[in-house]
Amino acid sequence: MNTVAIVGGGVIGGGWAARFALMGWNVRIFDPDPESERKIGAVMANARRTLPMLYDTPMPTCGTVTYHATIAEAVQGARWVQESVPERLSLKASTFAEIAANVGPDALVGSSTSGFKPSQLQENLGSLAARLMVAHPFNPVYLLPLVELVPSARNTAEHIDAAKEILVSIGMYPLHVRAEIDAHIADRLLESVWREALWLVKDGIATTEEIDNSIRYGFGLRWAQMGLFETYRVAGGEAGMKHFMAQFGPCLHWPWSRLTDVPDFTNDLVDLIAGQSDAQSGHASIRDLEVLRDDNLVALMRALKQQGAAAGKLLIDHENSLRMPLADTVPLITQSRIVPVDWTDVNGHMNEGRYGQVFSDASEELMAHIGADRAYVTAGHSYFTAETTIRYLAETLAGEAFTVATRVTLGEGKKIRLFHEMRRAADAEILATCDQFLLHVSLESRRSCPPLPQVAARLEALAQAHRD
Amino acid sequence: MNTVAIVGGGVIGGGWAARFALMGWNVRIFDPDPESERKIGAVMANARRTLPMLYDTPMPTCGTVTYHATIAEAVQGARWVQESVPERLSLKASTFAEIAANVGPDALVGSSTSGFKPSQLQENLGSLAARLMVAHPFNPVYLLPLVELVPSARNTAEHIDAAKEILVSIGMYPLHVRAEIDAHIADRLLESVWREALWLVKDGIATTEEIDNSIRYGFGLRWAQMGLFETYRVAGGEAGMKHFMAQFGPCLHWPWSRLTDVPDFTNDLVDLIAGQSDAQSGHASIRDLEVLRDDNLVALMRALKQQGAAAGKLLIDHENSLRMPLADTVPLITQSRIVPVDWTDVNGHMNEGRYGQVFSDASEELMAHIGADRAYVTAGHSYFTAETTIRYLAETLAGEAFTVATRVTLGEGKKIRLFHEMRRAADAEILATCDQFLLHVSLESRRSCPPLPQVAARLEALAQAHRD
Repeated sequence: MNTVAIVGGGVIGGGWAARFALMGWNVRIFDPDPESERKIGAVMANARRTLPMLYDTPMPTCGTVTYHATIAEAVQGARWVQESVPERLSLKASTFAEIAANVGPDALVGSSTSGFKPSQLQENLGSLAARLMVAHPFNPVYLLPLVELVPSARNTAEHIDAAKEILVSIGMYPLHVRAEIDAHIADRLLESVWREALWLVKDGIATTEEIDNSIRYGFGLRWAQMGLFETYRVAGGEAGMKHFMAQFGPCLHWPWSRLTDVPDFTNDLVDLIAGQSDAQSGHASIRDLEVLRDDNLVALMRALKQQGAAAGKLLIDHENSLRMPLADTVPLITQSRIVPVDWTDVNGHMNEGRYGQVFSDASEELMAHIGADRAYVTAGHSYFTAETTIRYLAETLAGEAFTVATRVTLGEGKKIRLFHEMRRAADAEILATCDQFLLHVSLESRRSCPPLPQVAARLEALAQAHRD
Repeated sequence: MNTVAIVGGGVIGGGWAARFALMGWNVRIFDPDPESERKIGAVMANARRTLPMLYDTPMPTCGTVTYHATIAEAVQGARWVQESVPERLSLKASTFAEIAANVGPDALVGSSTSGFKPSQLQENLGSLAARLMVAHPFNPVYLLPLVELVPSARNTAEHIDAAKEILVSIGMYPLHVRAEIDAHIADRLLESVWREALWLVKDGIATTEEIDNSIRYGFGLRWAQMGLFETYRVAGGEAGMKHFMAQFGPCLHWPWSRLTDVPDFTNDLVDLIAGQSDAQSGHASIRDLEVLRDDNLVALMRALKQQGAAAGKLLIDHENSLRMPLADTVPLITQSRIVPVDWTDVNGHMNEGRYGQVFSDASEELMAHIGADRAYVTAGHSYFTAETTIRYLAETLAGEAFTVATRVTLGEGKKIRLFHEMRRAADAEILATCDQFLLHVSLESRRSCPPLPQVAARLEALAQAHRD
């Protein structure tokens, strides 16, 4: 088992500790803060709960986490040392001197600094300098993959590659920053938005909440998948990145930019950006990129919808405003919709598991129809599915419209039995059937019991109608 | 049925047309571009495929879409007119004059402009001025909910509310921009990042792809759910927003900010921002916000994983590096994992439909174990599930660890029958069982056929071992 030393705890050091431990590394921590064990423990608890949720395979055996009184002790046997002490150069320097004096000759050292360049950190460290790089992560470190790996001219290709390999092995994306620069890359972008946002608040144009909404309901959803340039490449349409720059370059000289220095839109700059964009995304047509963008937006927004958060909360509210009561037909048409992209596998076919969801959604509609709706559940009563048998009869694809027709085949006392037929809308081919048996339960006792009289009456009437 | 007039097609006008039509409005389009019908048709096709995927309920009946030779004809009967002509003030002015001369007295008019303030557009329009506002959307208009609604002093509260109501009814989030300002809100933020990114490319610090990666693997995932200030509130920890500002305010004076004008961090500004942040997020503790953030990150990253895109692609690659062959036990342990947050309903219980996925994943592991792996499928052979019977025996929650033990109960010719037991890891309680019947198929003919000899042999041996 590999060993990592974490020097400096807090939110960032704790995040590193959690990621390494959950990826099977033994973790040795040094932090002079007497509260550090409690603070790191809280970060570890968050990480333990969520990092394994990202993976559909068994996780490595979690490493041990130990706390040590000195840097000398913490770095013993470490393959990687991660420094996350406060951003003061003198403190960083004394910390690295102590690491250099005690660490093994093959260990690599990463600094979480956002403020210093690697060459500033490498001063007076002898042979350690070549093995020390900036490895700047993003909070929460245990979930976000980005880590900016910034070497200087003192680092060899061999050490840089070894660092990348370790970071990849713990599930991160090392972005090799090829030039030393204050704040690296991502923080420069963040800093520019932070500045502009501060002006907007100070000048009374917008509140913090309005600014957050302007991000999370709009371009934030684009950036989670494509970032800046690929998004603009798509916006430029078939004419491509040069067209986009011709159209939007001049905006930079509009009044709102008067406070800032802006690079001239020379042909050289346009060619440089268009060329890099071609290298990045030129394998895909704009039409293909639009499809990717839209599929990803659907998947992201549906993920937020399932969480009831941000743009997903808006969707739920809007959907509720569109909801209509079921028409009183025999059978009941309990679903009428299309297969969304997040229900499909890599081939675009609807996943086996999603059929269960379709029929679960269908029975939920039927429940609402007989009065066992959300309010009924909130009041402590519900139907739980006890058994389902699904027959898979034909494949279906993302975007295909389908309906579910539902018959009540039994509705007596605490028992309901339903038979669902799922059909492709285009040709009425049966895609799947489901025989579903449910029991009425008390949510308090968690045991089966008869439904309330009004629900029992509506169920009986429905069962009678479906029998006739 | 309501009617909207779309004046100016293109990507933005086409996006508006698609959203209105799919939300049940009749759409009347004017665009002098002879190619407009083809261009808008392409946007409509994208929207028709994806917008309904966001909804789990039946959609409204799609409105009609008609093309008209003049603005006068297009605006007949319109309740809403949306202008999206090119960003030249003289062109906007003549367009609005023509709208004013022909539109009904109750119609509201939105402008998609990002460059002009509403008071600039309202000049010389008589009574229409009070019903004209900026309604600035984000591409793709048919999916992203954000629309910046910017009135001027000429607009009454009544007209502003009526505009909001219409925009909400078509699934958008009207962000009421209370002060007229060049570029409104979101584009100022975008513009600031665009400037910084241009410098980074021009100075050779980073390529367009590196910049995009620095966004989509890091803060882009945070911004899709929380935006800027709420993210920083969480980063500040229990000490809150004032602490965060005390810690990160000084960064603004670091060297990388030397080119820009920065507001002074007076107590007034700190109080203003901390107060607004309290009003926005003060109902939740930092710990609660961390849980929300992490749950949303898991859901967003798993959504991207299901799409094989961006941070999700990184996860797939990393997961494959962690994957181990199944241990040769009887029964086979085909799943060992925890319930992720995106598998649960609002109560935190695992959804009925996800049990089907668990057992589908379990049988996929078994298939790989007998040699019917991805390569076998790529070569044109596969097992399709024909029927499953699931018994639901106990509830399970997000974060709970479980295993699935799988026995082959039949393995003969083209038939496989499996029996899966899903148990909670903590107490070995059986959560659900699944009896699953699969048939071997040729992916070419889509019909059942015997498996290849090496798979048949491994299956038979496994069936024998499980029988003994």
